[in-house]
Amino acid sequence: MGETNKRTMTHRLLIFHTDAKIYEEILRRRIPNLDIRAASRPEEAEPFITEAEILLSWKIPDALLRKAQRLRWFASMAAGNEHLVKNPALPPHVLFTKATVYGEMMAEYVFAYLLYFCRDLYKYFKDQRERIWEPIRPGRLRGKTMGILGLGSVGRVIAQRGKQFGMKILGVKRVPEPMAEVDEVFGPESLDQVIPRVDYLVCALPLTPQTEHLLGEKELDLMKEGALLFNIGRGRTIDEKALIHLLKRKRIKAILDVFEEEPLSAESELWGLENVIITPHVSGINLPEEICDEFVRNYERWVRGDPLMNRVDREKGY
Amino acid sequence: MGETNKRTMTHRLLIFHTDAKIYEEILRRRIPNLDIRAASRPEEAEPFITEAEILLSWKIPDALLRKAQRLRWFASMAAGNEHLVKNPALPPHVLFTKATVYGEMMAEYVFAYLLYFCRDLYKYFKDQRERIWEPIRPGRLRGKTMGILGLGSVGRVIAQRGKQFGMKILGVKRVPEPMAEVDEVFGPESLDQVIPRVDYLVCALPLTPQTEHLLGEKELDLMKEGALLFNIGRGRTIDEKALIHLLKRKRIKAILDVFEEEPLSAESELWGLENVIITPHVSGINLPEEICDEFVRNYERWVRGDPLMNRVDREKGY
Repeated sequence: MGETNKRTMTHRLLIFHTDAKIYEEILRRRIPNLDIRAASRPEEAEPFITEAEILLSWKIPDALLRKAQRLRWFASMAAGNEHLVKNPALPPHVLFTKATVYGEMMAEYVFAYLLYFCRDLYKYFKDQRERIWEPIRPGRLRGKTMGILGLGSVGRVIAQRGKQFGMKILGVKRVPEPMAEVDEVFGPESLDQVIPRVDYLVCALPLTPQTEHLLGEKELDLMKEGALLFNIGRGRTIDEKALIHLLKRKRIKAILDVFEEEPLSAESELWGLENVIITPHVSGINLPEEICDEFVRNYERWVRGDPLMNRVDREKGY
Repeated sequence: MGETNKRTMTHRLLIFHTDAKIYEEILRRRIPNLDIRAASRPEEAEPFITEAEILLSWKIPDALLRKAQRLRWFASMAAGNEHLVKNPALPPHVLFTKATVYGEMMAEYVFAYLLYFCRDLYKYFKDQRERIWEPIRPGRLRGKTMGILGLGSVGRVIAQRGKQFGMKILGVKRVPEPMAEVDEVFGPESLDQVIPRVDYLVCALPLTPQTEHLLGEKELDLMKEGALLFNIGRGRTIDEKALIHLLKRKRIKAILDVFEEEPLSAESELWGLENVIITPHVSGINLPEEICDEFVRNYERWVRGDPLMNRVDREKGY
C-alpha cells in the first residue's frame, strides 16, 4: 500500500443499500470532491459498478460485485460479513473494512432487556392496569456475573457497561488476552467452565466455521437455572433446535435478536414461547451518521495512503 | 462529640421496621457485641425503646419515638426524612443520619424505563404476539440531554450513568457548584432555563418547604414535546393536579414512582393515562445488606468517637 491516492482528485464511490440516498446526502456534505453514486437496487447500480473504486455496502449480489473491476476498497456498513470473507466475488487484493460503530447501540439493547427483567417492568405494567399498588423488592445488576462470548467492538462495550453497573465480567475470546473491561478472559476451550458461572450470557460472536453452533445442547444445558441468554451476534452461532428444546423446559429465558434464518419464519415455535423475547435484528441497526463518520475517517487515511482502520481479516473470518 | 464510646462494651440498638428481623440477623453477624432488639410493631418496641441508644428505623410513631429517652443516634434507613427533620419527638441533641445507598438502585430504575422507551420494547412485545418481523430504527441515548433536579447521593449516580451512556447532563442544585458528573450545574432560580432544554427530566429532590410543588403548571409547561418526566424523589415536589392536566394533553410522558398521597388511590386518574407509568415507590427500596453495610461503617466511627457520615442537616431539611 505504498501508493497514495493524492494525485487523483476525484474518487468514485458507489453506495449500494436500501437507504443509499441517506448515506449519499451525508457524504456529499462531508466529502464534496468525492464522485458519489447511490443505488438501492441492482439495476440502479449497474451503470456505475464497473467504474467504482470504493463500495460502501453490505449485502450485494455476487453477480453485481463481480462487475466491480476497478474496485480497490469495499467498506462494509456491518460488523459481521461472513458472506464476503471467502467470497471469490471480492478478490483478496481489494481492501476490505468493517464497521465498528455498533457496540454502544447494542449495549443499549442488552441493558434495556436486562433492566426490564431485573426491575420487574412487566409486573408493574400489569399492576397498573388493575390499579394495584404492590411493591416488591427489586433485583440488582450489581454483583451479578455476565459472560460475554466475543470481545470485539461490540462485546467490549457491553463489558464496559456491565462493569459500570457493578457486574463481574467473564469473557471468551478466540485468543485470550487481559482486557481492562473484563475481569477474566478465557479461550474457547474454557466455554464449559464459563457458562455455569454466569447469570447473563451474551453471545456477540461473528459467524465463522469455528463459531457455527458453538452453543449446542451440551453447552446450553450448563446454564444456571433462571439465567438470561442473549444472542445479538449471528443466529447460527447457537443451535436453534437445541435452544428451543431447552427453552421449553423453562430453565432459562432468552432474548434473541438474530436467528438461523431471517426473517424468522412465522411458523417458528420461538415466537410463542413465554420465556423468549424476539426482536427483528435491531440490536445494532446501522445508523447512517455514525457509519458515515467512520467511513470519512477511513477515507481520509485512504487518500493519504495510510493503512485503513478496521480491516477485515479474511483468515480469521471477521 | 468529644466523648468516645469505647468504654461501654455493649450498646443498645433497636431496629424498628417491617423487615426488622432481616436487619437483626445481618447486624448480629456483623457486630456480635451489640445488644440488638428487633421490632416490627410498636407493641414489640415498647419494652426496649426507653433503653435504646441507637435506633435504626425510618417511619416510627411519634408517641413511640418520644419514649426513647436514652437515644443518642437515630440512623434512618431512608434518604428522605422530611417527617423527622423538624419533629420535636427527635430532639436536636440526637445524632441523625440518613442512608446514601439508593443512588445506584434508583439509576437502574431510571435507565430501565429510559431504555424501555428508547428501544421500543413495547412495539416488539406486540409484534411478537402477532408474529410480525418489522424492524424500526432504534433511538439512542447518546446525544440526548438529561436534566436532574437534586444532585445528592441519588442524582449524582444518575448523572454519572447518563454520562456513561453519552448524554449531556444539566443539573439543578440548591447551592450550585461544579461537579465532575454534570456538564452544567444551575441554581433553583434557573429552573425555567433548564427545563425546555432537556429530553429527560429526573426529579430526585428531597421534600422541603423550598421544593414543595417546585414543578407547577408553569414549569411543567416548559417541557419539550415528547420529553420524559421521572419523579423518584417525593411526590409533593410536583403539583400533581397540574401534572395530570398536562399529561392529558399528551405532550409528554411521565414515569412516576412517588405521589402526593401513597399508596396512590385507586380513584386517581393517573392510573389510566396511557402516557403514564406508575410504580409503587420501588425505585429505591431499602436493601438490608446495603443499609447494614453503611450502618456498620458509621457504627465503627461512633464507637471511635469520630464524626458520623451522612448527617441530616435539620436546617436544610435533608
